[in-house]
Amino acid sequence: MESEQNPLLVHSHIPGQIDRFSLAKNWLPRYTGMPLEEFGEYILLTNFHNYLELFAARFKCQIRGVGRPMQAATSADGLTMINFGIGSANAATVMDLLSAIRPKGVLFLGKCGGLKHSSEIGHFILPIAAIRGEGTSLDYFPPEVPALPSFKLHKFVSNILLDSETDYRTGVVYTTNRRMWEHDDAFRTKMQDMTCIAVDMETATLFIVGHYNQIARGALLLVSDVPITPDGVKTEASDQRVTQMWAERHLDVGIRAMATIGQSGEQIRHFRY
Amino acid sequence: MESEQNPLLVHSHIPGQIDRFSLAKNWLPRYTGMPLEEFGEYILLTNFHNYLELFAARFKCQIRGVGRPMQAATSADGLTMINFGIGSANAATVMDLLSAIRPKGVLFLGKCGGLKHSSEIGHFILPIAAIRGEGTSLDYFPPEVPALPSFKLHKFVSNILLDSETDYRTGVVYTTNRRMWEHDDAFRTKMQDMTCIAVDMETATLFIVGHYNQIARGALLLVSDVPITPDGVKTEASDQRVTQMWAERHLDVGIRAMATIGQSGEQIRHFRY
Amino acid sequence: MESEQNPLLVHSHIPGQIDRFSLAKNWLPRYTGMPLEEFGEYILLTNFHNYLELFAARFKCQIRGVGRPMQAATSADGLTMINFGIGSANAATVMDLLSAIRPKGVLFLGKCGGLKHSSEIGHFILPIAAIRGEGTSLDYFPPEVPALPSFKLHKFVSNILLDSETDYRTGVVYTTNRRMWEHDDAFRTKMQDMTCIAVDMETATLFIVGHYNQIARGALLLVSDVPITPDGVKTEASDQRVTQMWAERHLDVGIRAMATIGQSGEQIRHFRY
Repeated sequence: MESEQNPLLVHSHIPGQIDRFSLAKNWLPRYTGMPLEEFGEYILLTNFHNYLELFAARFKCQIRGVGRPMQAATSADGLTMINFGIGSANAATVMDLLSAIRPKGVLFLGKCGGLKHSSEIGHFILPIAAIRGEGTSLDYFPPEVPALPSFKLHKFVSNILLDSETDYRTGVVYTTNRRMWEHDDAFRTKMQDMTCIAVDMETATLFIVGHYNQIARGALLLVSDVPITPDGVKTEASDQRVTQMWAERHLDVGIRAMATIGQSGEQIRHFRY
Repeated sequence: MESEQNPLLVHSHIPGQIDRFSLAKNWLPRYTGMPLEEFGEYILLTNFHNYLELFAARFKCQIRGVGRPMQAATSADGLTMINFGIGSANAATVMDLLSAIRPKGVLFLGKCGGLKHSSEIGHFILPIAAIRGEGTSLDYFPPEVPALPSFKLHKFVSNILLDSETDYRTGVVYTTNRRMWEHDDAFRTKMQDMTCIAVDMETATLFIVGHYNQIARGALLLVSDVPITPDGVKTEASDQRVTQMWAERHLDVGIRAMATIGQSGEQIRHFRY
Repeated sequence: MESEQNPLLVHSHIPGQIDRFSLAKNWLPRYTGMPLEEFGEYILLTNFHNYLELFAARFKCQIRGVGRPMQAATSADGLTMINFGIGSANAATVMDLLSAIRPKGVLFLGKCGGLKHSSEIGHFILPIAAIRGEGTSLDYFPPEVPALPSFKLHKFVSNILLDSETDYRTGVVYTTNRRMWEHDDAFRTKMQDMTCIAVDMETATLFIVGHYNQIARGALLLVSDVPITPDGVKTEASDQRVTQMWAERHLDVGIRAMATIGQSGEQIRHFRY
């Protein structure tokens, strides 16, 4: 029955109401310039244009959506990458829109700022949860519901990391809408007291809105700056160096994981409410 | 004294601390691809790429920052337009970054959803305040501080609207990080109970972070959809129609306002904390 | 340096303060009747006396602590099981006391009530997080810090479950100090709206206090009743049936996991604050 298979109808069962699923099907192509049938079953998310360019160059596929809020490309094998932009609003939007195609798995390849002395630039982080700082979607679930990745998806990604002899850390990421806070000691201390390993702007929102839409999701983050040390703050020069040294490997692990999880991954059971 | 004139130092006077002003000066070119000296004293903000293209075509100037998080262009007369992206995270970031150049005035040309039956597609709204829904910058000021435009800037824009025989409405806008809520009756009712005239994703954040950075700011919003009626929800087709019919006029009023306020505007006194 | 290696001193660096680590070393034998040197590096936790009896019978080892608040037994190979009692108070106590011996891994074998129609009696749950309902340890971390298992420990337990062809579910468990709530519709609805898979009385506390004490921890829960259906509420008879049918397997998976993780598990990196 359609009403059982459509996760969106769970949340919009009032007759005559605007139907989220229809909206998402109309909006996803409008936001990305990509027709629905071109999306694959597994999705990589990024907010760096050059990741999408590297993806499109590797798979010799076209980038859709230039001039639109989001850009996307799909490989011949049916793996899709979307550059959804920066911040929680865009993170929530893309996870709502993706409900239109009910993907089997979504992996975010993002960058984050390391908050521990053991987090160095170039480290990979597989976050076990993300704290929902301001801007991360209280309209979806009350604040005590934790923002979590899908266990089996992360288990698979961690195996790909081990196979490729890429070391990684686990821990809790703090997600906030605020970008410039490096000068604010109280804010930094709060995040450290919560023992967060890193700070970013999207992970908690992707996790909680993905959970709301019943989408299996994960995040593999690259530490691109260490804002707790004065010379660790991101600058033009440091960002280019990080991109040169680690972006290819980051992208590579993400592609390997999402390209093979359909065949090799433990079955991800889609839960029912 | 430099430390008195620099609004950022007000908030970062601890010796040895990371300096916000230096960060902003380093980051603004990194985010926009535009060197600091190329920015004008008055800034138009948009989150629609085609507004920036229309601007660049009219003034025959180059678009900087393609492939970066934000794009910008500056006319020969020194008026700058920035496409800063969607959502509160980007809105807060651009107002923090602009502190690097201490602009004399910033006007946001945005789109919003009308929430009253008197708000029709194509109407212009000059918001007198914006409600800080989730995601709009509690780190800057506690929630009871209202997000407001600079009065003299809005007074000037309202005169330009009258001169060009463009009707406009005033009222309070609700700003939220959430994009898909049209199906959620409780959320819609909450906004209407607060007597909001429209809903958007950036205005409250631009106002409150502009206030924090002591930047004169305003917003002129175009009603691009009326999500309270089922056929008023934005779709690909409706969006193109709105753009065709009203975008040129929207942009035109914005350019006239920011191009002439320096000569004709009532002086905007910069307050001190 | 001792002060760097001892996680407890991180939280008690004020001169003259009572030293948590010394207290824990004194109290752990007092609570369990087991001398410190008899504890193994890997710990199984239970709150069912018959699990401890089955453990002691299988490994022909002595049960310590009869007549004390907790009982414990250690196999010849150095695997320890502790029956720590019921509720958050005891869960917090045992995780604080265990800091005395800095175990390498702690796995809780608990029972829970299933909250979804897909959770049936006899199912195993590997919780990806637990919601900190009332009574679950705000003194350790503020409420927005999620209560989480250690990823690599759970990854290992999930592999043992797969190897032994034991199906399992993942999801979020709601932990509360309240025992009788089956009659309270609002409480039940709240837990279901948060999409919790099960409810118990210890998991969130074990996770958050384990995190505070930097102890790698996990939980493997057995659904022993389904309180959302009238005939699913636990009774004497139903409990005996559950024990007969699934307790041996539950214990077996737990023993296999904790007995082999030292040799076969991915190295669990102990983070530093």
